[in-house]
Amino acid sequence: MRIAYQGEPGAFSEAAARRIDAEAQLVPYRSFEEVFDSVEQGPAGYGVLPIENSIGGSIHRNYDLLLEHQIPIVGEVELPVIHHLLALPGASLDRLKRVYSHPQGLAQCERFLRTLKGVDVIATYDTAGSAKMVADAGSTDAAAIASARAGEVFGLISLAASIQDFDDNLTRFIVIGRRPIRNEVADKTTIVFTVPNEPGALFKALSVFALRGVDLTKLESRPIPGRPWEYLFYADLAAARDNLTCARALGHLAEFAPTLRTLGSYASWKSHQERLPDPFEVVADNAATRGSEGVQ
Amino acid sequence: MRIAYQGEPGAFSEAAARRIDAEAQLVPYRSFEEVFDSVEQGPAGYGVLPIENSIGGSIHRNYDLLLEHQIPIVGEVELPVIHHLLALPGASLDRLKRVYSHPQGLAQCERFLRTLKGVDVIATYDTAGSAKMVADAGSTDAAAIASARAGEVFGLISLAASIQDFDDNLTRFIVIGRRPIRNEVADKTTIVFTVPNEPGALFKALSVFALRGVDLTKLESRPIPGRPWEYLFYADLAAARDNLTCARALGHLAEFAPTLRTLGSYASWKSHQERLPDPFEVVADNAATRGSEGVQ
Repeated sequence: MRIAYQGEPGAFSEAAARRIDAEAQLVPYRSFEEVFDSVEQGPAGYGVLPIENSIGGSIHRNYDLLLEHQIPIVGEVELPVIHHLLALPGASLDRLKRVYSHPQGLAQCERFLRTLKGVDVIATYDTAGSAKMVADAGSTDAAAIASARAGEVFGLISLAASIQDFDDNLTRFIVIGRRPIRNEVADKTTIVFTVPNEPGALFKALSVFALRGVDLTKLESRPIPGRPWEYLFYADLAAARDNLTCARALGHLAEFAPTLRTLGSYASWKSHQERLPDPFEVVADNAATRGSEGVQ
Repeated sequence: MRIAYQGEPGAFSEAAARRIDAEAQLVPYRSFEEVFDSVEQGPAGYGVLPIENSIGGSIHRNYDLLLEHQIPIVGEVELPVIHHLLALPGASLDRLKRVYSHPQGLAQCERFLRTLKGVDVIATYDTAGSAKMVADAGSTDAAAIASARAGEVFGLISLAASIQDFDDNLTRFIVIGRRPIRNEVADKTTIVFTVPNEPGALFKALSVFALRGVDLTKLESRPIPGRPWEYLFYADLAAARDNLTCARALGHLAEFAPTLRTLGSYASWKSHQERLPDPFEVVADNAATRGSEGVQ
């Protein structure tokens, strides 16, 4: 099994890919687009993409890319986000001049960053990439905010551990692929739809689910490019697409929604956790522990 | 009148502030937080903040800051976004090595950027700030994506004009302030609410408006920090808060919504355009023309 992900080794996406299949061959790419391309044209069978963070919200670029491609969502993974302040051996907190990370990483550690005085905070495209940058630069006055595993990969030490503002910092990743994952049983469906441009249209759209008792676990709006202040709606339904009630609700929505597309029907992360004493949890904990030990 | 905005002179926010009052004293700040602080504690009477772009979507940071502060929304401004590729005199398209802009600016000119070969695209915190950086660096192999006015301010020429992927690229700015703007008549209300954690709860919330014929012009979800996968909902209603039907709907929502807050009731940009042959339009067009002429 080959799984594509965006970022450098040590990226949170790499850890998410590892949770799908601990034995899989993981293939790093520079951009989300390249992950889609690799699944669409090969060589990857699956791709892992962050879609939402419990603090920062949706990663809209990936919603946009789902629409542009014809690769369905076949699974999801949730991962706790634990940030470390990583620097070269010899560095110390009080002599730092610059801190690098992805804007989401910086935003998630805002309170911690405010305790550092006289330090420039610089946004980059990637958490693990920031760790690589700090390692390559060879200077002890720079640090990166990234995972413990990124520290391990690039030979950095952790100046401060678990520096995120909120403990309940989770990222949800979607798995895209041309084939379903193993024998998983779908219990969740992601759709995208538009509503007619008239008062009460969204209410009517939600009624097809509410009146049938199909629960919405997420609703997100995105502008339609070139049509100012008109929106696409992304919804997650707590039912499989081929569940009879859900199928009827979708048929009902299709009666009046100008566009409706199912982006995938798959096993929710919650269903994984309910069915088995998550084997991945152990793997991840070991990795985190190894990471912390390896870098201190 | 003093109006605070984020960015360097030449930023789109500066142009939006100019549309509120062409005679106002405009005060630039480095961050959105500082704009809020300036309105909360002085010296600014009003602040202008981008809240949504018709291509890129909501600027979530400003929704978060609205919640953290007690300053109401008192108005809104819409502005077309026209990007230019700006560089020092002597620069040329085929010798460019680097292009700088805010991630939204880069995303909005993606197709154009793909036509430039062998050029590094670098994300910064600010479109006009990128123009300043290119001017300060003094090198003709770098360019910035920013407004014509930013080019004028920092002495750059336009290598390519109107390079955004979509013509209908609009940004909506909110005006925050402790006092209403002049004699404007409110016809729009922005609220934030949560719903009980039970199936159909959002449907029930929308029903208080739909059943009374109060139109929702926008609905946006945001995660609640520290409570994974629970959401705040931001909604724009096409009615003033003190309109009787709207007031009753809000009262109804408050009966079962765990939290409900009105962030402001104000005159919609649409109502401005319907009432008067937009005097600001002329000012902005002049500025754009001056900008283009001044820099070529």
